[in-house]
Amino acid sequence: MGLKLRVKLMGLEAGGKLIAILNHDDAEEMGAHSQGRLNVSFKGEQATAIINTARRYVEKGEIGVFHELAERLKVKEGDFVDVQISKPPRSTAYIKNRLAGRKLSREEIFEIVKDVVSGSLSEIEITAFVTSLCHHSLDLEEALNLSLAMVETGKTLEFNSGLKVVDKHSIGGVPGDKTTLIVVPIIAAYGLTIPKCSSRAITSAAGTADRAETLMPVEFTLEDVKKIVEKTSGCIVWGGALQLSPADDIFIQVEFPLSIDPLLLPSIMSKKKAIGSRYVVIDIPCGLGAKIKTLNQANLLARDFIELGSRLGMKVRCAVTYGSQPVGYAIGPALEAREALTNLMQGFGSPDLLDKATDIAGMMIEMVGGGDGKAEAISLLETGKAERKLREIIEAQGGNPNIKPENIPIGEHAFTVKSDMSGYILWIDNDAVVDIARSAGAPKDKGAGVQLNRKVGDPVKAGDPLFTIYAEKESRLDQALSTLQASKPIGVGERMEMLMSVVKAPEITLEKFILER
Amino acid sequence: MGLKLRVKLMGLEAGGKLIAILNHDDAEEMGAHSQGRLNVSFKGEQATAIINTARRYVEKGEIGVFHELAERLKVKEGDFVDVQISKPPRSTAYIKNRLAGRKLSREEIFEIVKDVVSGSLSEIEITAFVTSLCHHSLDLEEALNLSLAMVETGKTLEFNSGLKVVDKHSIGGVPGDKTTLIVVPIIAAYGLTIPKCSSRAITSAAGTADRAETLMPVEFTLEDVKKIVEKTSGCIVWGGALQLSPADDIFIQVEFPLSIDPLLLPSIMSKKKAIGSRYVVIDIPCGLGAKIKTLNQANLLARDFIELGSRLGMKVRCAVTYGSQPVGYAIGPALEAREALTNLMQGFGSPDLLDKATDIAGMMIEMVGGGDGKAEAISLLETGKAERKLREIIEAQGGNPNIKPENIPIGEHAFTVKSDMSGYILWIDNDAVVDIARSAGAPKDKGAGVQLNRKVGDPVKAGDPLFTIYAEKESRLDQALSTLQASKPIGVGERMEMLMSVVKAPEITLEKFILER
Repeated sequence: MGLKLRVKLMGLEAGGKLIAILNHDDAEEMGAHSQGRLNVSFKGEQATAIINTARRYVEKGEIGVFHELAERLKVKEGDFVDVQISKPPRSTAYIKNRLAGRKLSREEIFEIVKDVVSGSLSEIEITAFVTSLCHHSLDLEEALNLSLAMVETGKTLEFNSGLKVVDKHSIGGVPGDKTTLIVVPIIAAYGLTIPKCSSRAITSAAGTADRAETLMPVEFTLEDVKKIVEKTSGCIVWGGALQLSPADDIFIQVEFPLSIDPLLLPSIMSKKKAIGSRYVVIDIPCGLGAKIKTLNQANLLARDFIELGSRLGMKVRCAVTYGSQPVGYAIGPALEAREALTNLMQGFGSPDLLDKATDIAGMMIEMVGGGDGKAEAISLLETGKAERKLREIIEAQGGNPNIKPENIPIGEHAFTVKSDMSGYILWIDNDAVVDIARSAGAPKDKGAGVQLNRKVGDPVKAGDPLFTIYAEKESRLDQALSTLQASKPIGVGERMEMLMSVVKAPEITLEKFILER
Repeated sequence: MGLKLRVKLMGLEAGGKLIAILNHDDAEEMGAHSQGRLNVSFKGEQATAIINTARRYVEKGEIGVFHELAERLKVKEGDFVDVQISKPPRSTAYIKNRLAGRKLSREEIFEIVKDVVSGSLSEIEITAFVTSLCHHSLDLEEALNLSLAMVETGKTLEFNSGLKVVDKHSIGGVPGDKTTLIVVPIIAAYGLTIPKCSSRAITSAAGTADRAETLMPVEFTLEDVKKIVEKTSGCIVWGGALQLSPADDIFIQVEFPLSIDPLLLPSIMSKKKAIGSRYVVIDIPCGLGAKIKTLNQANLLARDFIELGSRLGMKVRCAVTYGSQPVGYAIGPALEAREALTNLMQGFGSPDLLDKATDIAGMMIEMVGGGDGKAEAISLLETGKAERKLREIIEAQGGNPNIKPENIPIGEHAFTVKSDMSGYILWIDNDAVVDIARSAGAPKDKGAGVQLNRKVGDPVKAGDPLFTIYAEKESRLDQALSTLQASKPIGVGERMEMLMSVVKAPEITLEKFILER
């Protein structure tokens, strides 16, 4: 049974979903339920909307229309639209079956992903889908089909088939990891093609895109990215605006608040596929303060990446790396960009950072048939070729190619924490360091962060500086100091103290969740 | 870091949740994420809201406030509120652990349910909780704690401890089930106390409250219910307005669109506990067209009801009943009320209906120590005592105690379907009958529905009427007829035809979902 309803614009976006609000009485009259579907048409435009019901604000005879639906139908306040109950999309049945433990077929997965991207599924349905993947976890067939569906619903890039397109990705979780800023120029200098699309920080103090943005612009269209890469063999851009996997951008809105990550594999691999990569190194930081806690976990995950990559036509190798303390000395976008640039220019400075970068670059070189990759990478670094390549990329992306580390602005408000005893650095708490850097304003304030003076194993005397906190605003420095008060980021002692914490009452708190893509 | 923001009222309810919208820039400035939490305070009022972010409609410096949050804070358009990031409630950590397969403790369950009722959990979080119960399904300990938490967060009724308070509940799924309209007066006439709180139809053509409403008012406060029951020993009221389990009212908003029902046990038993019942019969209709398909399934569910009841201090027996065709002949609120009243007055008419009603009433009588319960029930029916008791209840609830079946109005628009062949009624398709009745306007149009002329096993001649469709509006009769076109509600033949359907392509559709509480 149909009704003619008067449009009331709600003045609100619905997160990409097509949502219409019916007055409770109209809904009852039509036999419509909240979360059911409504066919809405207006002057030849037609859309299937998700129904919400209201007892006030939307009167009988009205239909409340959110931004996305208004745009789709091209309606204005006061227009009259025709509405009719319709069925929920078939993908809702597939989601229900997945909840009951049934694995999804290729066709079912494609239909779900298509409906997610077109705004046809409600938040409840998307949440049910994502949580259904937590239980009977994704098998490789599902991961493959999800990856392919995510690629198909997004934009893609293709390079000349003669080019060897390589890529790297870190699953994240270790602070200060500016490895990409060093790997990309080494690899591009070697002659491979590396269209590196990076993310901004979600839960960390800096993403690679945040770091790179202190050196050069990072927001481009996919067409620009292609031009830059064809000119310089590499780029370091923000992937978020490229629409490589719009489905993933929606799934993450559910994964993040729930601190779950069941789509890790297809999320990462779909973007590598979409950007045209053929050889990929996945960095899996492993350790107490990292996302992956044990070598066994890391190995299992690595096998899945390799197998999924192979089914997607990509050669994948994984680097399980030490993740129990920050990489290098700097944490925060500008501080990290300074550290990376300095190391590229000098060829030394932060031994663990350079070791990791040349390991990963070396793996890439060997994957495409090169000889001693690590030696090659070190040589590209030491001869200054990598530095010159980075400056080429900076120029191609519209930055100042002559930029010096000291040109990158750092927050003016600083506080240095000194050791109150002599001994050795026994541990550095990743979570605590990130909390302090974020309290100080990172990643939004690019000059904010933490600069370490010591790493694990280093000797220290009472009164020696341990680290300096930088902030762009005094209020944020105060906030960082109060975060510092409540935490202990660095342990100093003669011997390791064994007691980590005392559990008295069965209190359960939300574990620190790392989400970076 | 805190901000002072100007209130913009969104003119919209948020389904009981406390939701605030921040402009994207303000959110980034504060390090706030969508679905995170915001502490909002205004003139001594304080609330923790769930954050949404927007790039338009809510400007920098503004905070979009939904109805519930505005009421809680007592703010008007243009007021300035103080906001500060705060942590999500601890219950979100418990939900995450449940998703990972960890069973929930009593304290954790109470905290989740409390946060659901207070509007502190987002739709994503509530959905994740409900779906988490589908996988590692509820154990009895969790079901018990959920029931207790649902009782504690709702209203309760207590009767004089001398009274034997009995109750019945059908898990639903069989059309035309007006058993309660006959059981309640039998039981009240016997001298037991039966405060029957019924539901309205959700997915069916009529709920008991819809049926009873054609005889008498059914919407009361809990205090009124107590008075009615103390006067007449029984009532038949709508439970929906009594706030017996506000948590369940929220869970159902997620369960219904997903067609899942993991909270069945605590949902039903919490309400029985809240209304003060001590002896409960659970009716489990079983059969091809019912919610429960096999006897084994029915027996397992029955054991859970009995065990959970015992832990909640209630004695429970379960009746597994035949559910493969409608109960009696009428489907639709008014038609069913007519049938029940006629059967009560005559003591005969619909053999299966009276058999079921006296079976269930008999079980109740025996549970409290009575002798041959079924014989007792039949006698109360045949002597007219049950009819007189129903009229007492109708009067106590403000209806006309002298109502006759023909006083109950039935839709004026009717269409009778006749058999095109001679033979026997081989089957009646519950789903198809319900679809037709709902298309005709039931349950909202109380006079709409389907009146059967034959039941399974009855002989029929070509041209004999099979059933009549009633509607209050001609347009709805047309709609019912077009539903009829696409379905086959009754099978007539000499022999059962064995082929039920042909599966050619792997199409998956959403199975008919029955949700009645």
